Amino acid sequence: MNHAGHQPDHPLERMIFFSDAVFAIAITLLIIEVHPPHLPFGSPWQAYVAALAQLLPNFLGFFVSFFVIGAFWAGHHRAFGLAGHYSEALISPNLALLCAIVFLPFSTAFMSANAGMIVPSVVYAVTLIVSGLLSRHMTRLATSAGVVRDDVPRIEIALARNRSLGVVLGALLSLAIAFVDARFSQAALLTIPLFQAVNRLLIQRRLRSVSPEKSGTMAAG
Amino acid sequence: MNHAGHQPDHPLERMIFFSDAVFAIAITLLIIEVHPPHLPFGSPWQAYVAALAQLLPNFLGFFVSFFVIGAFWAGHHRAFGLAGHYSEALISPNLALLCAIVFLPFSTAFMSANAGMIVPSVVYAVTLIVSGLLSRHMTRLATSAGVVRDDVPRIEIALARNRSLGVVLGALLSLAIAFVDARFSQAALLTIPLFQAVNRLLIQRRLRSVSPEKSGTMAAG
Amino acid sequence: MNHAGHQPDHPLERMIFFSDAVFAIAITLLIIEVHPPHLPFGSPWQAYVAALAQLLPNFLGFFVSFFVIGAFWAGHHRAFGLAGHYSEALISPNLALLCAIVFLPFSTAFMSANAGMIVPSVVYAVTLIVSGLLSRHMTRLATSAGVVRDDVPRIEIALARNRSLGVVLGALLSLAIAFVDARFSQAALLTIPLFQAVNRLLIQRRLRSVSPEKSGTMAAG
Amino acid sequence: MNHAGHQPDHPLERMIFFSDAVFAIAITLLIIEVHPPHLPFGSPWQAYVAALAQLLPNFLGFFVSFFVIGAFWAGHHRAFGLAGHYSEALISPNLALLCAIVFLPFSTAFMSANAGMIVPSVVYAVTLIVSGLLSRHMTRLATSAGVVRDDVPRIEIALARNRSLGVVLGALLSLAIAFVDARFSQAALLTIPLFQAVNRLLIQRRLRSVSPEKSGTMAAG
Repeated sequence: MNHAGHQPDHPLERMIFFSDAVFAIAITLLIIEVHPPHLPFGSPWQAYVAALAQLLPNFLGFFVSFFVIGAFWAGHHRAFGLAGHYSEALISPNLALLCAIVFLPFSTAFMSANAGMIVPSVVYAVTLIVSGLLSRHMTRLATSAGVVRDDVPRIEIALARNRSLGVVLGALLSLAIAFVDARFSQAALLTIPLFQAVNRLLIQRRLRSVSPEKSGTMAAG
Repeated sequence: MNHAGHQPDHPLERMIFFSDAVFAIAITLLIIEVHPPHLPFGSPWQAYVAALAQLLPNFLGFFVSFFVIGAFWAGHHRAFGLAGHYSEALISPNLALLCAIVFLPFSTAFMSANAGMIVPSVVYAVTLIVSGLLSRHMTRLATSAGVVRDDVPRIEIALARNRSLGVVLGALLSLAIAFVDARFSQAALLTIPLFQAVNRLLIQRRLRSVSPEKSGTMAAG
Repeated sequence: MNHAGHQPDHPLERMIFFSDAVFAIAITLLIIEVHPPHLPFGSPWQAYVAALAQLLPNFLGFFVSFFVIGAFWAGHHRAFGLAGHYSEALISPNLALLCAIVFLPFSTAFMSANAGMIVPSVVYAVTLIVSGLLSRHMTRLATSAGVVRDDVPRIEIALARNRSLGVVLGALLSLAIAFVDARFSQAALLTIPLFQAVNRLLIQRRLRSVSPEKSGTMAAG
Repeated sequence: MNHAGHQPDHPLERMIFFSDAVFAIAITLLIIEVHPPHLPFGSPWQAYVAALAQLLPNFLGFFVSFFVIGAFWAGHHRAFGLAGHYSEALISPNLALLCAIVFLPFSTAFMSANAGMIVPSVVYAVTLIVSGLLSRHMTRLATSAGVVRDDVPRIEIALARNRSLGVVLGALLSLAIAFVDARFSQAALLTIPLFQAVNRLLIQRRLRSVSPEKSGTMAAG
């Protein structure tokens, strides 16, 4: 990443910092919705294993949401890695994105506590879709004229803008399956890395067809 | 924003950073006061929708408070974007403002759990008014002589100081309505963006009448 | 503060940053131990006021602990404002201080839930005393040779080291009173600002006697 | 530490920052799993002492986990203190490490609530081992070619990579003991500082045998 040394504007840095803190708190709060089982003293070890097994939807929800918030943070990180100039027009869309991210621990806990049910699955999938679309909007703003650094090649901008698609596509599939059989809705979220990998492959192919000598740089940074 | 590149004093930066972290935690804690419903396995989907409908005051409280804390953060961000020099006199008023911000999740949860009741509505409105006044005080200090950067035009200082008014006016209206019919007190908070928009319009008009060539700069940054 | 422009070492900055985040989270967590009352719909407004009145020890605990953690943060901020060089010897004492700070929300909630009782009052006072002593130790390390910036006058170092005394003295008084009549133990904590003010006065007098032309600088920064 | 003044790449700084925030939140969340006892008003002081005594496993869990997360943070801090260049390949392994760290408050609360039981002890020890291995992996990446600063001596890199071993060895001992008698499993974690001290001694000896004039620098920084 050859632009890494550039320091962005200070008000931009502070906005990024505030966003990082919110992402970090939301991703950590996920665990306090997983309540540790408290069994009577001297219960057999099988009872503990059974208690943990009952928490499986909570663990699945924790890991999926941790991965999803992590992916949104990584997208934010990548897009703002290309930004260099502050604009007050960034504040409101950024708060809207953070609001959706902060809502995710609720959706996760709601789905985990009522595993396999249609309404919680729909709420979770819709939260992901809204987060994905707001993230996509934010990514576009961070790489728009007047905000993006002057030395960023057009192709990199185009690439950074398409990162949220994997989450949105996986969540759309999860939403569709929720209406057929909600028990498999959560499993559909496991396709998100698949969609992201396909997206990444398409990006690399597109990159190679446009400027072959650039692809090495992209792989490294 | 032509002053964006200037780095503030390091002790000032650390104070801003600490404030950002507190704002970020308070805004994220709002969601853990919204407890996800846990229904018996196999409940009909209508029961889930009904359970969510019962949480409507909590969702409304979450979104209003998220927006309000976000607005206070944005005001802090804007005012300290003009500050360049540290003064120990900033510490105590800043802690007082943060204390009011940290109190907001309590007021929000109290109002959401007892929707339409007069005392919780009054507590919430008073918390907002106190936060707004402390924010206004902090904004003045951040742009006072000895703290503000030397290159900031007087008009920008005057503008940054009037940002908290929207929240205070909306909260005052909400407080007045709470004594008439508390059910509409919360709805009155939705006028905050209106007050902010009017404030913004007055600011832009005042700006245009003072120095027409400056208005473009203000709109952009 | 004429040294404000100096940037400290990067590993030092990161340690300060981590500390700030822990201080910020601990100070914000105080509010989630104050549980908002949830009354039956349509309760008279007197019932709400009574419910809030019952929370008075919690509010008092919240405000006192917010002020105390804020004071510890301010002392950390001031001492490290004089530091310029990283040393790995700072890590462990800093973690010990942060551990005491993180413990404070527990002590606060324990005291608030059992107001006027001797054991919770003792636990709270001891937590404050331990925090104060660890803070004093940290302040000394931050201003020790090899860590402190080379351009800091000796008098400023001496002053920064005596800031934690107010909390320790107030907590010692609170501890003594807890054994006489625990109901007044918490009130004794309100003497902390008094001890701090006396400490500040002694500092200013000592400063004036040593170098009269310096006192203006200290008052400003 | 002679490389301290170098500023790392901005995207690297932001990743470090995000990690710090997650470490800070996880370490602070440990305390909210220790629920303060609430006794009937006027209970004798012996009842309070007994209530605190019942929390001993929670206090032990809190202090051990605080120390462990602090040690992981210190290892992360030390390794990235040698890093200077950003690579996107750092993002996923870093998120994996943070995920294990965020899981620790759950494991701690599970073990504390069911002290002396085999399954919770195993879950806790396994969480530590996984965290330790992910930390070791991250430490290697942070000091790998292309990421590490060009001016860092090979010996320092080798040293930074071996810091997580103490936690892993202590946790392995704790895991083994859990299958013999789970009551002593937690106590085995107290050997972690011992393993770390031995590790440190071996490091210093190895350092001295390689380059005697370097050892002073290592002790100081």
